[in-house]
Amino acid sequence: MLQNPTQPAPQPHSGQPEDTAALRELYARMEDQHIKPLWTQIGNLMPKTPTPRAVPHLWKWADLIPLARRSGDLVPVGRGGERRALGLANPGLGGNTYITPTLWCAVQYLGPRETAPEHRHSQNAFRFVVEGEGVWTVVNGDPVRMSRGDLLLTPGWHFHGHHNDTDQPMAWLDGLDIPFVYQNDTGFFEFGSERVTDYATPRFSRGERLWAHPGLRPLSGLRNTPSSPLAAYRWEHTDRALTEQLLLEEEGQPATVEQGHAAIRYVNPTTGGDVMSTIRCEFHRLREGTQTPTRHEVGASVFQVFEGRGAAVIGGTRHMLDIGDIFVIPSWVPWSLEAETQFDLFRFSDAPIVERLDFARTLIVGEAS
Amino acid sequence: MLQNPTQPAPQPHSGQPEDTAALRELYARMEDQHIKPLWTQIGNLMPKTPTPRAVPHLWKWADLIPLARRSGDLVPVGRGGERRALGLANPGLGGNTYITPTLWCAVQYLGPRETAPEHRHSQNAFRFVVEGEGVWTVVNGDPVRMSRGDLLLTPGWHFHGHHNDTDQPMAWLDGLDIPFVYQNDTGFFEFGSERVTDYATPRFSRGERLWAHPGLRPLSGLRNTPSSPLAAYRWEHTDRALTEQLLLEEEGQPATVEQGHAAIRYVNPTTGGDVMSTIRCEFHRLREGTQTPTRHEVGASVFQVFEGRGAAVIGGTRHMLDIGDIFVIPSWVPWSLEAETQFDLFRFSDAPIVERLDFARTLIVGEAS
Amino acid sequence: MLQNPTQPAPQPHSGQPEDTAALRELYARMEDQHIKPLWTQIGNLMPKTPTPRAVPHLWKWADLIPLARRSGDLVPVGRGGERRALGLANPGLGGNTYITPTLWCAVQYLGPRETAPEHRHSQNAFRFVVEGEGVWTVVNGDPVRMSRGDLLLTPGWHFHGHHNDTDQPMAWLDGLDIPFVYQNDTGFFEFGSERVTDYATPRFSRGERLWAHPGLRPLSGLRNTPSSPLAAYRWEHTDRALTEQLLLEEEGQPATVEQGHAAIRYVNPTTGGDVMSTIRCEFHRLREGTQTPTRHEVGASVFQVFEGRGAAVIGGTRHMLDIGDIFVIPSWVPWSLEAETQFDLFRFSDAPIVERLDFARTLIVGEAS
Amino acid sequence: MLQNPTQPAPQPHSGQPEDTAALRELYARMEDQHIKPLWTQIGNLMPKTPTPRAVPHLWKWADLIPLARRSGDLVPVGRGGERRALGLANPGLGGNTYITPTLWCAVQYLGPRETAPEHRHSQNAFRFVVEGEGVWTVVNGDPVRMSRGDLLLTPGWHFHGHHNDTDQPMAWLDGLDIPFVYQNDTGFFEFGSERVTDYATPRFSRGERLWAHPGLRPLSGLRNTPSSPLAAYRWEHTDRALTEQLLLEEEGQPATVEQGHAAIRYVNPTTGGDVMSTIRCEFHRLREGTQTPTRHEVGASVFQVFEGRGAAVIGGTRHMLDIGDIFVIPSWVPWSLEAETQFDLFRFSDAPIVERLDFARTLIVGEAS
Repeated sequence: MLQNPTQPAPQPHSGQPEDTAALRELYARMEDQHIKPLWTQIGNLMPKTPTPRAVPHLWKWADLIPLARRSGDLVPVGRGGERRALGLANPGLGGNTYITPTLWCAVQYLGPRETAPEHRHSQNAFRFVVEGEGVWTVVNGDPVRMSRGDLLLTPGWHFHGHHNDTDQPMAWLDGLDIPFVYQNDTGFFEFGSERVTDYATPRFSRGERLWAHPGLRPLSGLRNTPSSPLAAYRWEHTDRALTEQLLLEEEGQPATVEQGHAAIRYVNPTTGGDVMSTIRCEFHRLREGTQTPTRHEVGASVFQVFEGRGAAVIGGTRHMLDIGDIFVIPSWVPWSLEAETQFDLFRFSDAPIVERLDFARTLIVGEAS
Repeated sequence: MLQNPTQPAPQPHSGQPEDTAALRELYARMEDQHIKPLWTQIGNLMPKTPTPRAVPHLWKWADLIPLARRSGDLVPVGRGGERRALGLANPGLGGNTYITPTLWCAVQYLGPRETAPEHRHSQNAFRFVVEGEGVWTVVNGDPVRMSRGDLLLTPGWHFHGHHNDTDQPMAWLDGLDIPFVYQNDTGFFEFGSERVTDYATPRFSRGERLWAHPGLRPLSGLRNTPSSPLAAYRWEHTDRALTEQLLLEEEGQPATVEQGHAAIRYVNPTTGGDVMSTIRCEFHRLREGTQTPTRHEVGASVFQVFEGRGAAVIGGTRHMLDIGDIFVIPSWVPWSLEAETQFDLFRFSDAPIVERLDFARTLIVGEAS
Repeated sequence: MLQNPTQPAPQPHSGQPEDTAALRELYARMEDQHIKPLWTQIGNLMPKTPTPRAVPHLWKWADLIPLARRSGDLVPVGRGGERRALGLANPGLGGNTYITPTLWCAVQYLGPRETAPEHRHSQNAFRFVVEGEGVWTVVNGDPVRMSRGDLLLTPGWHFHGHHNDTDQPMAWLDGLDIPFVYQNDTGFFEFGSERVTDYATPRFSRGERLWAHPGLRPLSGLRNTPSSPLAAYRWEHTDRALTEQLLLEEEGQPATVEQGHAAIRYVNPTTGGDVMSTIRCEFHRLREGTQTPTRHEVGASVFQVFEGRGAAVIGGTRHMLDIGDIFVIPSWVPWSLEAETQFDLFRFSDAPIVERLDFARTLIVGEAS
Repeated sequence: MLQNPTQPAPQPHSGQPEDTAALRELYARMEDQHIKPLWTQIGNLMPKTPTPRAVPHLWKWADLIPLARRSGDLVPVGRGGERRALGLANPGLGGNTYITPTLWCAVQYLGPRETAPEHRHSQNAFRFVVEGEGVWTVVNGDPVRMSRGDLLLTPGWHFHGHHNDTDQPMAWLDGLDIPFVYQNDTGFFEFGSERVTDYATPRFSRGERLWAHPGLRPLSGLRNTPSSPLAAYRWEHTDRALTEQLLLEEEGQPATVEQGHAAIRYVNPTTGGDVMSTIRCEFHRLREGTQTPTRHEVGASVFQVFEGRGAAVIGGTRHMLDIGDIFVIPSWVPWSLEAETQFDLFRFSDAPIVERLDFARTLIVGEAS
């Protein structure tokens, strides 16, 4: 992006030619031809380690929710604006509504009985519900209940709209790869129905009824799909998986990532890989008192606190965390988590991009205490 | 195998040289050098379509169980004989205890309080429970409950033993790739403990507690494994998956293999592929009155009736089927199923061998009525 | 990137809320919290089809070479500046030296007897030689001759430096994924030797001696690698492959992409896939008089004319092309080629990024004349 | 296969029940029902290590060629017999013409101006030419020259016939997966033209003209194929690859399998994997005086000496080897090679079957001297 080419290079490369009139004239001639020398910018362009312009940042749920409610009062939802979503803009990213260079993160708000119209786009999207219930998202015609702790998918080019079946508003977390798609010019968008195509409110979506049976694959679904055919990952299953990991750890069995740290990755049952091609989703649970080792990872992550209380130490700064708080860890910035109580966090990241293109590296600095 | 080289070639190739003294002398000289001409045997060796020596056959549960019980009376289980298993010998396979050229199928029987000692082998194995409960199989130290309708895996080179925790005997179906491994000389075998290493009787194995959460993968298990890490596939889940497929079909949704025919494949959650490298396991449910179209498939299958009553038409012959009955369909022999009641069948086959080596073909002759 | 959020949205979405004092106050409160509404920017952020800020552009070799020579006079090459490379800056990309949002393209120039010092970086790089010879690039200690028509690889994290063994300067095309790596914060950089580690000038690199045998893989190289182990793809082979395709076409055999259009993709022999994880390299040859159908493709491409004369029609504008000319086609901009003579073009693109992340689409508008 | 169930079990399992009248009666009742106990046969069926019935064996070229010539005198080639091929029958495999349980190996002989008619079959086939020239094999209509040192492929379900364009006879090695396909009932066969469909005698086949360019893939061939699209692997390339490996080794570079032992695997350029789904082909060259370490491998191999003189030590027995000699190493039988002169050997094996089904193991006993 290099929006500020005059900023000091993070890891400056020396060895520049002396500034002469002849050189200036050469640079001007280049400029006319849309050419720029590498030697003046290599230090900025190719730093020794990832040097994100994105910065670590924390958004407090207590700040977000009033703004979402106020938007509910002032801004109608409907065709054109499409969604009443408040995007979190990383302070380092020059005013763009990007939480990382690759990811979009927003709080979406739907008032009582409202409908967000249907559309589809190349961008992959998910919703995570930190509180509330009563909204159904209709994905390719399949109504999917949204309840607390659930992860709901709307993979690229699936039509989707939402409607609130209750007299209460509901807010949730939206995650998409909008910045990545925008930056790399890979996106298509199409309007669908102005209402959702099915106002039914079943407890389980058809995708779940076909696919949410552990280790069982329908013979009608033998072709692998780039995104998961499972539209909803229910809190009940996530909670049970994490509970079992911690119990197994107590029994002396290998089950957790590291001592006191249980975690699952949400996966595409047709492949065992990530739920969508660009976005990884995980859920982490720390036992009270656990402190994770400090990690550097290539690629950016966003966490939302789901339950409990603790802290994140990001780039050396400790942030106290409450339920609903959202924080971002840019690429290669060291981070660790500390659990004051049992501590549950949802996480999403651009790891599939990093891994599929062979850029992954991890450095673990310390060990769990 | 060609055990009977004088039998008439199924699709004879003509064009043989005239039988002369000179030719006989040549053949004799070849014989001395361990050489045989192709031209005399090509019709037998390379038929126009698969021409299995294995034949379709049906074993009635009502015949099998008394023999299993009698074995329980007469034959101790323990080190050396290892298992009290009655192998089903395809009548076409020359006296070998092979149900197909690739697969072994047996009824295993364990008396009250008995233990079958631990061992491991390259051969992949599973158990399917058509009736009863009370036995735990201990797989690499993890006790796995065996109950009606469950599929239990003991993949290659996993230590395993069984013990009956009750005062009742129990019998179940064993499936392995013994013939394939024997034929191709790929097998290793090692004795383990003479007792099982853990006599605990938990309701759920550790493998299930880690892995039986739909679409959720433990972060401690991110490396793919050739066989499923899920040691047990419970009837409760299988039944629910099939029930939902038929309900979805009633709602007009695509969910079944074909009209009235629900089916799931048991899969390895790390890949979405078959549970083991050589054996495919599936469960099929037909709605009352359903008749499947007639199929020819490369590769051999074995079915066991789990619930209901119906018939199988195999190679043009109708076999009436009751609970527990086991039948085999050799490669490319046409078959279809007919359901007198709702009709549940477990199936296993060598399809992974056929598909991974690019020999798969299917021909569907008719359409479901 | 959205550097100019006030520009008219390419495909405006209507349906915005009325501009009121209350709304302005809400937006101001959001701004304080690093929050921005989706509804005001969705039309710009999520256009109906890819709407690149990058523009089609042509750089004439006749303009580039004098600037490269002049840089040779004025700018030393050495540690710090690292390379005497003139980057082509897409006029639509806000002053950054990016030829597309993902790719870097430069003309590198090395004077007589000069050495460009060794370094390594996560960024994948290649060189393509449109004219000249006499430079060796030393990749992980393996000296690789650079001659006319050759493609030379320096995949991510391979040390590399160059030296000119002659009394003539040499210029060539450099392609890298610098913008993608910069944008997504995935890059590492490390200095190596200030001289190249081996000044030998063998005709063939060790990588070629091991790997450039068609269909033959060394048993010492059975592990697949993300990038090609073949450091050089020689013009002699490329030319012969294209010649044969056109001859086969004349013989009535399927061999070309479309009538009169021969093409090869450079591949990693360990996988048959792209040479590097982020960059696709191809070579195209059109028979005299051929005109390709008009294509829209997701992802951006850069071409350099290698031999012959013709034109490119990009986004409706015809550009006449001579040897050495470099042009860029942003994502989804329609393009076709026309050959006045037999017409040879080298091409590179970000297609592996697009395909591995499941964003690929192609639309072919017309048919070859 | 178990053709001799009364032979002593290789690694007997003890623990059999006492032989009583009741037990005999039970066994008789089982026999009636096509049932056999596991406990009496497990020692034979599931040995501790692979215990092949196939035995190591050597066929001398000096013995084979006179028999091939004599067959040329006495046996016409044509429709029905199809091929004048002399199959090598492993002495341990009960009279079947199998060199291993999976593989067929034959010497095929075609007299002056003769034609072997076209057919196709599921079985994968190749030819390797140890001496001579003048025959073209026509594979799916593409005439492929067969010359000394060449490997020629006729993958499953490709039509193929051969014709001798000279006044000299020619003999070569045929390798197929006939036993595997026969044993597992996966084969189809179809007659084609009684003459070959194209009597042209081009120096290079169309497959080579499209595909035999190192690291270059035609854009018209971007879909991966289970078998290699390259019909011929020429001796010139194989020889050069091996020569370079030994030269690189002399220069102190990693290039050979082990000291003095160069080797290439023939691969499918669309994947980098084996040329066909069931058969691996390799070529090995030992420097004079080299002795390879002793290896045990799961899966069976066949070697043919191409050039030089040496010995194979198989299961402890040394066999002296001359040009053209063919020997077989059954699964897990220890083997090593010794080179009296520079020593060239072609090898084929069933390794793809073993590896794709996850049965691979290797044990290297000693180290190269």
